Amino acid sequence: MAFGQIAELGDAVVDLQRQARRGRPEAVFCQGKTPEQIVTITRSLLKAGQNALLTRIDEKKAESVLGEFSDKSPEYDAQARCLAIRVSPAPPRSGIVGVICAGTSDLPVAREAAFCARFYGSDVETASDVGVAGLHRLLGQAELLLKAKVLIVVAGMEGALPSVVGGLVSCPVIAVPTSIGYGANLEGVTALLSMLTTCVPGISVVNIDNGFGAGYIADLINGQDGLTCNTTSSEEST
Amino acid sequence: MAFGQIAELGDAVVDLQRQARRGRPEAVFCQGKTPEQIVTITRSLLKAGQNALLTRIDEKKAESVLGEFSDKSPEYDAQARCLAIRVSPAPPRSGIVGVICAGTSDLPVAREAAFCARFYGSDVETASDVGVAGLHRLLGQAELLLKAKVLIVVAGMEGALPSVVGGLVSCPVIAVPTSIGYGANLEGVTALLSMLTTCVPGISVVNIDNGFGAGYIADLINGQDGLTCNTTSSEEST
Amino acid sequence: MAFGQIAELGDAVVDLQRQARRGRPEAVFCQGKTPEQIVTITRSLLKAGQNALLTRIDEKKAESVLGEFSDKSPEYDAQARCLAIRVSPAPPRSGIVGVICAGTSDLPVAREAAFCARFYGSDVETASDVGVAGLHRLLGQAELLLKAKVLIVVAGMEGALPSVVGGLVSCPVIAVPTSIGYGANLEGVTALLSMLTTCVPGISVVNIDNGFGAGYIADLINGQDGLTCNTTSSEEST
Amino acid sequence: MAFGQIAELGDAVVDLQRQARRGRPEAVFCQGKTPEQIVTITRSLLKAGQNALLTRIDEKKAESVLGEFSDKSPEYDAQARCLAIRVSPAPPRSGIVGVICAGTSDLPVAREAAFCARFYGSDVETASDVGVAGLHRLLGQAELLLKAKVLIVVAGMEGALPSVVGGLVSCPVIAVPTSIGYGANLEGVTALLSMLTTCVPGISVVNIDNGFGAGYIADLINGQDGLTCNTTSSEEST
Amino acid sequence: MAFGQIAELGDAVVDLQRQARRGRPEAVFCQGKTPEQIVTITRSLLKAGQNALLTRIDEKKAESVLGEFSDKSPEYDAQARCLAIRVSPAPPRSGIVGVICAGTSDLPVAREAAFCARFYGSDVETASDVGVAGLHRLLGQAELLLKAKVLIVVAGMEGALPSVVGGLVSCPVIAVPTSIGYGANLEGVTALLSMLTTCVPGISVVNIDNGFGAGYIADLINGQDGLTCNTTSSEEST
Amino acid sequence: MAFGQIAELGDAVVDLQRQARRGRPEAVFCQGKTPEQIVTITRSLLKAGQNALLTRIDEKKAESVLGEFSDKSPEYDAQARCLAIRVSPAPPRSGIVGVICAGTSDLPVAREAAFCARFYGSDVETASDVGVAGLHRLLGQAELLLKAKVLIVVAGMEGALPSVVGGLVSCPVIAVPTSIGYGANLEGVTALLSMLTTCVPGISVVNIDNGFGAGYIADLINGQDGLTCNTTSSEEST
Amino acid sequence: MAFGQIAELGDAVVDLQRQARRGRPEAVFCQGKTPEQIVTITRSLLKAGQNALLTRIDEKKAESVLGEFSDKSPEYDAQARCLAIRVSPAPPRSGIVGVICAGTSDLPVAREAAFCARFYGSDVETASDVGVAGLHRLLGQAELLLKAKVLIVVAGMEGALPSVVGGLVSCPVIAVPTSIGYGANLEGVTALLSMLTTCVPGISVVNIDNGFGAGYIADLINGQDGLTCNTTSSEEST
Amino acid sequence: MAFGQIAELGDAVVDLQRQARRGRPEAVFCQGKTPEQIVTITRSLLKAGQNALLTRIDEKKAESVLGEFSDKSPEYDAQARCLAIRVSPAPPRSGIVGVICAGTSDLPVAREAAFCARFYGSDVETASDVGVAGLHRLLGQAELLLKAKVLIVVAGMEGALPSVVGGLVSCPVIAVPTSIGYGANLEGVTALLSMLTTCVPGISVVNIDNGFGAGYIADLINGQDGLTCNTTSSEEST
Repeated sequence: MAFGQIAELGDAVVDLQRQARRGRPEAVFCQGKTPEQIVTITRSLLKAGQNALLTRIDEKKAESVLGEFSDKSPEYDAQARCLAIRVSPAPPRSGIVGVICAGTSDLPVAREAAFCARFYGSDVETASDVGVAGLHRLLGQAELLLKAKVLIVVAGMEGALPSVVGGLVSCPVIAVPTSIGYGANLEGVTALLSMLTTCVPGISVVNIDNGFGAGYIADLINGQDGLTCNTTSSEEST
Repeated sequence: MAFGQIAELGDAVVDLQRQARRGRPEAVFCQGKTPEQIVTITRSLLKAGQNALLTRIDEKKAESVLGEFSDKSPEYDAQARCLAIRVSPAPPRSGIVGVICAGTSDLPVAREAAFCARFYGSDVETASDVGVAGLHRLLGQAELLLKAKVLIVVAGMEGALPSVVGGLVSCPVIAVPTSIGYGANLEGVTALLSMLTTCVPGISVVNIDNGFGAGYIADLINGQDGLTCNTTSSEEST
Repeated sequence: MAFGQIAELGDAVVDLQRQARRGRPEAVFCQGKTPEQIVTITRSLLKAGQNALLTRIDEKKAESVLGEFSDKSPEYDAQARCLAIRVSPAPPRSGIVGVICAGTSDLPVAREAAFCARFYGSDVETASDVGVAGLHRLLGQAELLLKAKVLIVVAGMEGALPSVVGGLVSCPVIAVPTSIGYGANLEGVTALLSMLTTCVPGISVVNIDNGFGAGYIADLINGQDGLTCNTTSSEEST
Repeated sequence: MAFGQIAELGDAVVDLQRQARRGRPEAVFCQGKTPEQIVTITRSLLKAGQNALLTRIDEKKAESVLGEFSDKSPEYDAQARCLAIRVSPAPPRSGIVGVICAGTSDLPVAREAAFCARFYGSDVETASDVGVAGLHRLLGQAELLLKAKVLIVVAGMEGALPSVVGGLVSCPVIAVPTSIGYGANLEGVTALLSMLTTCVPGISVVNIDNGFGAGYIADLINGQDGLTCNTTSSEEST
Repeated sequence: MAFGQIAELGDAVVDLQRQARRGRPEAVFCQGKTPEQIVTITRSLLKAGQNALLTRIDEKKAESVLGEFSDKSPEYDAQARCLAIRVSPAPPRSGIVGVICAGTSDLPVAREAAFCARFYGSDVETASDVGVAGLHRLLGQAELLLKAKVLIVVAGMEGALPSVVGGLVSCPVIAVPTSIGYGANLEGVTALLSMLTTCVPGISVVNIDNGFGAGYIADLINGQDGLTCNTTSSEEST
Repeated sequence: MAFGQIAELGDAVVDLQRQARRGRPEAVFCQGKTPEQIVTITRSLLKAGQNALLTRIDEKKAESVLGEFSDKSPEYDAQARCLAIRVSPAPPRSGIVGVICAGTSDLPVAREAAFCARFYGSDVETASDVGVAGLHRLLGQAELLLKAKVLIVVAGMEGALPSVVGGLVSCPVIAVPTSIGYGANLEGVTALLSMLTTCVPGISVVNIDNGFGAGYIADLINGQDGLTCNTTSSEEST
Repeated sequence: MAFGQIAELGDAVVDLQRQARRGRPEAVFCQGKTPEQIVTITRSLLKAGQNALLTRIDEKKAESVLGEFSDKSPEYDAQARCLAIRVSPAPPRSGIVGVICAGTSDLPVAREAAFCARFYGSDVETASDVGVAGLHRLLGQAELLLKAKVLIVVAGMEGALPSVVGGLVSCPVIAVPTSIGYGANLEGVTALLSMLTTCVPGISVVNIDNGFGAGYIADLINGQDGLTCNTTSSEEST
Repeated sequence: MAFGQIAELGDAVVDLQRQARRGRPEAVFCQGKTPEQIVTITRSLLKAGQNALLTRIDEKKAESVLGEFSDKSPEYDAQARCLAIRVSPAPPRSGIVGVICAGTSDLPVAREAAFCARFYGSDVETASDVGVAGLHRLLGQAELLLKAKVLIVVAGMEGALPSVVGGLVSCPVIAVPTSIGYGANLEGVTALLSMLTTCVPGISVVNIDNGFGAGYIADLINGQDGLTCNTTSSEEST
């Protein structure tokens, strides 16, 4: 378990060894960082030959970054608040990640999840506005439910959708509570607790509004066959 | 809005006028009362010509009461922890109250709801163990869902069942969270919050494990046509 | 239990079958939607021959919608933040929904409840600023309390009004906690918990500030006699 | 502000100077103390010429104490869990303390409040089971409400009674939440928060189930005229 | 217990009988009201011959009111956010209300308490910035502590000051938690809970930042001797 | 998405179709069920040719079940409170599930997770008492950390272990908070919240003490390659 | 930062290297462990030449341990629930640790703190029942307050004592909240939050009822001069 | 325990005796104070010959103060929001305070801690962005971990860093939770609870984002050898 490369950038220390150790580069959480800091960290990743994923980056900050790395075909999704710059293609995955959300207000989180899973290499298919108030909208997505290797289910308010989806499928479900709703939703805590106490096995949960985390773990699961990341990373770390 | 009859029984004051004012006699919550207190209050209700509903009465206390009023054909449901003694029949209702529960552990609360709705005059039909983990069990109850005039939906854990039921029916749904579950269920608070933040309109909520309250309000709704309680009660109060 | 019509509008999926299934069209929650999205969804409802109810729509968004559908006599209540466009009259109801609020600060929620109950067909009568600090103000509303078929009671702070009203009447009470108050009101959570733990049976509760939900369920109860919605809807769904 | 007398009894340090400083001797909270410790502390108070008030003392512990001080005419109220031994009469008060409770389950707390207010010198009158579910029971106590110089109002569940009482009277109201109820009552926290956010001025609140504290402060208020405690105490402290 | 006068002002209903019933006119909580509403309600109070107390009124709204009633010598305290207009002098009180606060940040709440107690007739003396971090600052206020008939103690953060003050004095203490602090102060909830669980008897608590409520109840206590409000008010109500 | 077989056993409804639909039979949560109910449900599963997994079954109940099915070689783990009866072997999995726990007190939950993952077919390896207080104990498990296809990490108190493990590995981590600890651990809520807010991606969380859920999802992930469950189950359901 | 010795004892892994790395052996938390497990772990510590500290050990378990190691002069304090067995004397400390508690009910926690600080080598002096309700009891301990090098202050209920003590002294204060109290004390959470939001700098806080933790850190601070633990431990680890 | 000097500045009362009593002057918390108030208080400290530490002072307020005292070489750190003006050098300390933070977003709190510890006399060394997601970054700081006499560990999100650091070192650790994170971090409460329930002894905790408090207590510990503050301060107070 050898440790290794870091990039010391003033107060920030980029964990360049993470690609080798964990099979994926460190992502850059942009909330609370200045455009300059973001550019500096991004450059250090690219310089180390690693792809850069920037999350929670609003349009204003994104402009600076897009301008700076315009020669590297950066991709930006404003609704997902994500930006990607690749220096090498992501490894291929055999399965499909499904991303389903309950209401249109949950879309930003769902799109963040989809963006991140794609960044790491997964094929992603999505379905939105299929909440439990009208079950036929969900059942109309049976094809996606059955073919996905992992499902990300995003919901706010009472957070019932993961339970209903979980009862129908045989793949792992990653539930993402959102802060959508008002009053007794307690800014997402109710959906979070609801998902954790689901009567349906096969569901695990990430933090409120954590689309990134859901996309990351869905891709991890999707990638757990054939060529494992460990193999890749031990090679890279030599 | 004339006020009136009470029975002063030492520290307890029985609101005998409630029958006239609210169309239903005062129910006796037995938790924390001695068998003697329960018998005394029950006797004062019967003496005033009112039916007696005793809730949260365990088997030991029930024995005393059943013995005391054995000549009045008392009914006791140990699982529901309810006991009824009637001196006159309940008024007839035109509709059916449906009581549905998610798991077998929710049965005591569901049975309390059914017992109480029946006590006040409603016909009740029930379906148990139809939680969202296996939707076909619920859809198998379509007949009940469509014919009920009011539905009581009882669930613990994540409390998703009322949302799913509510999305399918056109009658009012009374949701009853239960304390069933562990950990993040927070002794029923999670199911409670979940039901309150449902994305489905047409659902209102009562306290955790409050089968009595759900049965009462379901019967109230069921009785809101033809002969209203007000009419009955103004006659009785003269 | 046949499922059916939906309108796929990009990310939004309008549940057009809801009118047939639940007796009422899907309402449009406007918070977090753009004017364009609101107009598109509204148009799809009207095109399907369904009335449109828009809730939580502020004055700026309302202007766009009012302009777009000026030929359809839209109604807007800025304090209630609700907008209605009808293509057919609502079904008649036999009873009256009473809406009572504790303080003038609770009025926006009370008006939302009244607007929505009226939209679905109920006659509504209201009384405001009758909180428990001066009981005679409430007792002065005895006529409304006695004639209503359902009562919506709106209160913030300690949320005591539903208990007091509930003790006086023989119809179902829908309690609506509001976020009015400060400090230990915990943004409405205190009023919510207080209403849920009422010592008075016959009261059920909806989410904090959820005037829409209260109006919806009150009209549901009001409509539960003679011609049931189910009958109506099975006809409509053929 | 001279400090002074204490009695060092092993780990316990009795604040004998409290009588002089605060006009009332230290009370002995018996929960978690052994009968021996209780007897020792009681003896040190009596020896210093001070009356002894023992709170939260169950019947078993009370027996030991009653036996030990049988020559001093101890008074014990098992429901209030309070025991008093006097070596001198309490100072006379000019007004009456009213103690009102919502339900019979709240009686132990109400009786503790009454016992303690009487111990310190107040005349106390009580009314029980006058909760807001039947307002006429409360209005039947109008005489007590109008003549009391201070009112202690004890209630569990939603804790609405102090607000209703407060709106009717012109004296200070001390509200005591109790842990009576279940589910969303959160073991008394709901009643506590409810009382704190009352819309009625003139009400202040003590801890859940704190009958002792309510009785103490009610007597303090009752004693705030003519002969103040300060005068008494400075004499005593010389 | 005759009920009576109200002023119906559109949605607002002013309880003009409160002066007679409770010995004090209704106060006007201005947060969330427009200047026009405030002026209308104020005028109805003055017209009924009652003094007007306006709380939580910011400088902008105050300007409108001050302009409107400039002929009535209105008093405004911007830090306390309170405004008073008198048509008759307040009744004299025999005692002094002491208002003590822990830090300078607690001053707005302390000044609100002082303003309101004075409005109702009490003489008020104050001491600020005497928190427990430097006990000698508090002990330097011994004179005030000993002569006050009631003490209002205002503190944020850990809210320890009421306990320390309460242990030193023989008069009732009204504790007011404030939202001052950060992090684990939970916007005042920590100070609130701390004051409620004080180990010192003689302290009761009002809502977070509720200076008005503290001033009201302190004056109530201060007025509880000789001529009671009840007497006064029954005369006034004839 | 055909629905199908159920076994109606009085109040319990066993979802026999779950094996076909989700690739795994319904597990029997024994807490709150009588030995008779457990035996009846177990028999219906075995009769349908499905393996039976009984969780949260204490030693006393286990005895009854072990006696009843002694001919079917039942396996019982008292510490895990799990019991398994197989009628057919579980499908083979290609990878290893690692189960790691922070302290010896977390063992019951860890063993439940291991038992369940094994029941569904996974090979499981475990390491216990490797909490972050002595990192070398964890680093001594490097081999397991690197070879596992999924890791279940069980911890109470501050719940830091999943973050530390997650930072070292390239496989998905299922974090299981336990109720171990006291005081500010809030019966597991602190560990739960801590795991949800981890700074390390690749970690998802299940309910407090939910070893079963963790084992289930770990096996789901482990089984997501080659022969998918869907294939298997459609065959079985014919 | 070399890692090293462990003792693998079935499921338990004793961190024998902790003595060298952190200057203190691992303590044994006995709650939830069997007497056999406790004896086994204790033996492994003694065998490695390390002193053994057993915490949260009740009298029954203590008997087994005392019997087993009767030849090693074990010390047991039943109130503190701590047991110590030494094979070598603790290192000498230059300063004194003061342990102060607010009420006699806080004594078990205070004694645990004192026992543990002494076990690690500190001289400890104590003062009990010096809560803020009678400040003179605290000021009577001025000598201890001034001479202590570190102070441990233990309090339940509102937890005000650390703030008052902290304002008087120039040494670090370790505050220990206890679960003593009822109602709004929330089982110690109120005291915990109160201590964390103290207005007095120089105070840090440990978990509710965590006397062990307080004693440990107090001794750590006491030992931070002259001969540091690091020096000692690097020698030992060779 | 003589009390003494204060400076009465209108509503503010500066505790000038604190330097003598506690060995450190009163710090000025600038949030919620006007520049004028800050200047006045600062001047009173300097006039009394005491150094001035201003915390939570934003750049705009800092400008006023820097301008006013430009002749006294004020130091300002905008990120730490701290300003220092010295009239005499701080006393020398023998040890080093280490300040470590988990992420770059935690830097403002870490810098506040460092600034304050330095102000009181400590030598401070820092390491940032060494969170548990990449342990090698932390282990790379082994030198600092081993030589520090006290460590301040700052972390948001799950707050795991203090546990990991605490397990490696033999000096006291002061843990500072930050409000960094989102959703289930509950604005820092999760990190706070996590740190309090650490499985690692030797760690105590201060309020969320309380860098000042951590720096103060770290310096207190650092100063607890040889020349104690008490000695110094009694000299100074003569």
